[in-house]
Amino acid sequence: MKKTLFQAEVIIPSADEAPLKDGGLLVQGGEVLALGQGEELKARYPEAEIVDFGKALLAPGFVNLHTHASMTIFRGLADDLPLMTWLEDYIFPVERHLDPRWVYWGAKLAVAEMLRSGVTTFVDMYLFEPQVIKVVEETGVRAALGEGLFDFPSPGYGPLEKGLGLTEELLKNFSSHPRIKIMVCPHATYTCSPPTLKAAWELAERYGALVHLHLSETKDEVALIKARYGKRPPEHLEALGLLNEQLLVAHAVQLDDHEIELFARRGVKVAHCPESNLKLGSGVAPVSALLEAGVTVGLGTDGPASNNDLDMFGEMRTAAFLQKGLTFDPTKLPARTVFKMATELGAKALGWEGLGTLRPGARADFIVLDLAAPHLTPYYDPFSLLVYSAKAGDVKHAVVEGEFVLKEGRIITFDEEEAQSEVARIAEEIRRLLDKTLPD
Amino acid sequence: MKKTLFQAEVIIPSADEAPLKDGGLLVQGGEVLALGQGEELKARYPEAEIVDFGKALLAPGFVNLHTHASMTIFRGLADDLPLMTWLEDYIFPVERHLDPRWVYWGAKLAVAEMLRSGVTTFVDMYLFEPQVIKVVEETGVRAALGEGLFDFPSPGYGPLEKGLGLTEELLKNFSSHPRIKIMVCPHATYTCSPPTLKAAWELAERYGALVHLHLSETKDEVALIKARYGKRPPEHLEALGLLNEQLLVAHAVQLDDHEIELFARRGVKVAHCPESNLKLGSGVAPVSALLEAGVTVGLGTDGPASNNDLDMFGEMRTAAFLQKGLTFDPTKLPARTVFKMATELGAKALGWEGLGTLRPGARADFIVLDLAAPHLTPYYDPFSLLVYSAKAGDVKHAVVEGEFVLKEGRIITFDEEEAQSEVARIAEEIRRLLDKTLPD
Repeated sequence: MKKTLFQAEVIIPSADEAPLKDGGLLVQGGEVLALGQGEELKARYPEAEIVDFGKALLAPGFVNLHTHASMTIFRGLADDLPLMTWLEDYIFPVERHLDPRWVYWGAKLAVAEMLRSGVTTFVDMYLFEPQVIKVVEETGVRAALGEGLFDFPSPGYGPLEKGLGLTEELLKNFSSHPRIKIMVCPHATYTCSPPTLKAAWELAERYGALVHLHLSETKDEVALIKARYGKRPPEHLEALGLLNEQLLVAHAVQLDDHEIELFARRGVKVAHCPESNLKLGSGVAPVSALLEAGVTVGLGTDGPASNNDLDMFGEMRTAAFLQKGLTFDPTKLPARTVFKMATELGAKALGWEGLGTLRPGARADFIVLDLAAPHLTPYYDPFSLLVYSAKAGDVKHAVVEGEFVLKEGRIITFDEEEAQSEVARIAEEIRRLLDKTLPD
Repeated sequence: MKKTLFQAEVIIPSADEAPLKDGGLLVQGGEVLALGQGEELKARYPEAEIVDFGKALLAPGFVNLHTHASMTIFRGLADDLPLMTWLEDYIFPVERHLDPRWVYWGAKLAVAEMLRSGVTTFVDMYLFEPQVIKVVEETGVRAALGEGLFDFPSPGYGPLEKGLGLTEELLKNFSSHPRIKIMVCPHATYTCSPPTLKAAWELAERYGALVHLHLSETKDEVALIKARYGKRPPEHLEALGLLNEQLLVAHAVQLDDHEIELFARRGVKVAHCPESNLKLGSGVAPVSALLEAGVTVGLGTDGPASNNDLDMFGEMRTAAFLQKGLTFDPTKLPARTVFKMATELGAKALGWEGLGTLRPGARADFIVLDLAAPHLTPYYDPFSLLVYSAKAGDVKHAVVEGEFVLKEGRIITFDEEEAQSEVARIAEEIRRLLDKTLPD
């Protein structure tokens, strides 16, 4: 089988290892075969094809641990509004008319944006998720995803039992796909009753899948669950016997110390989405405390309707800066830790073997940043450079399973301009729809 | 005199006006002559040369209201450290050997980065400031700046009286420069005694200049001033009779309600630097409260050693998101307001007439963003797009005083690659210097 030796001025194998100067990464069949000095590997594997990126930094691709990719179609539709106005006057009325075609093109545009910000794996929960699967298959990216499940009928699948049926079908069909993992995605404890949650967990357990759920995002949610069940959201799940290692929660903003300890004890994983949590007025998750307690915490952008981008560089900076600023301690969440959250910890949260590092045996998912930009000068420390100074625009190449998806700044597996014009057209349909429903 | 008509799909004249679709901006001699529909202006001014930017957004250039541009040379040198370790083990030992050449190249690199993030005016306070002035003259950018003044001798000018003398000389020499304004820059209340502060204010008053000062940045600073003078920093200045309209302070993080009201009453202006304040563990300035009290608040990046970039797009997002997230209110600091801070309010804080908007009579300082990127799709609202989705990399052109400084993504007034390689070389000098002084 063909071997390829990728060379770059700097290679970051993982958050915990020393970066390699003039490094080489040997890839065969989508897997990392060896990692070391470029010249040494060249001599050892003379048969390998050479791809030399020159003055560039090569690092593991990011894992975007929580998003609703298709919501690109709503990006910038209605910002700076109270949450309920935003949802009830804009998002919900449009989602009632949601078209599978919208989900497809919205996700495709999102994949373009994510690849350009270094994301090679993303976690997705939305409606008409088979459309997102189609996008993942066509674009060559990697994803863990599932259909959002609610007590009430969904425009995606109809009544709940159909949603569970669809999820099971996907679990069966994609059990051995190299780039797709199916998750069971009950939306939240306020949209899913205890029987719905139990059915979701049971299904997940049967297929060895993860459950992905929004939890403890806002104070209002905590108050609502407390009013409804007499318990805060984590205790509510704990009482149902569902707070366990199967669970990856998004947000976890409103946690108290007892809940942090409980998450650690039960092996619950967290997708931290700092920008969405700020923009929607939800608050700031206790990330440093969660990590110190031993909880696996990765980073997510959340959907582009509440962020408004899918940029993991921004998310890394914001995550690190927030913990420092709000604890008055600049040593909190250093560059290496936040990079680890964006890569290895995200992969660990998904239980996806071989992702998040470039150690031999890992999947060959990596990104290459051009180091030529003024904002990347000078060069003292690769982790500082990557986390605090690099931008999405610096990503020149992205490789998934050893194959280029972004090359020389161009997406090569699909036509991103087509996705842009389709989404522009969908935005016009959405605007027309809202013209009819929006209060004057 | 030659007239030029700049056309773009969208023109934002100011934060308070409706964006123009298929707009035109007529410029003559560095000034905005007219603004309106592109086709209409074309008919009215047939003699004008046409520059059509096509599918692009044209907006006033940003005012970066607080930075230390030359500190690009320290970017990424030492992050995630306690403030005193960072200053005493890294920044101060190197600054003792500071070379005017370092200041020159550091500032030049910073101007390249700033232009690429839409900054057409910046406020600078550092050492060897005549070097920064030289950079501003050569690069065609606009700046308000001054030499940092301290009680103790400075590597820039020696004893304080020489610093005051240098400042006065600059005030005289640049009193009528179209792109340069000189400020009097006592560093802070903890590095400048009351007589130093009084001398600075007196000098500023004589020349109708602003005083620029770091104030109430950290809890430690407040405690130190309280211990030394029995008063918190603003009250200390108030008692000295120096809290007045001449004053532009950077940071203002640690303010209580009484001080916010005092700032409003005395006409003190504020440069809000949210990312630096977070990264250094200082906290979050009460920006919404300051604006509601009527204080003029602009946005600054602070120096690239504590940010680590000079990106006003990031700063706008962070400023808006923080106020929403920390007040649990997504309606706080909406896109238009934060855009106004980055443009018109920054100009107002500087008392610089004709900056920050593109109304007829304004200086022709503007930026043009390419709207073709996936992350700028779809297009619902120009302010949302600009503040929440656009990135530095989208800036394709920057014009100052009617002249291109960045054109088609290339800086045309100087060689930015030269600045990069000079700074890379300086970084090696700095590293060698630290190898000798750093504790093991």
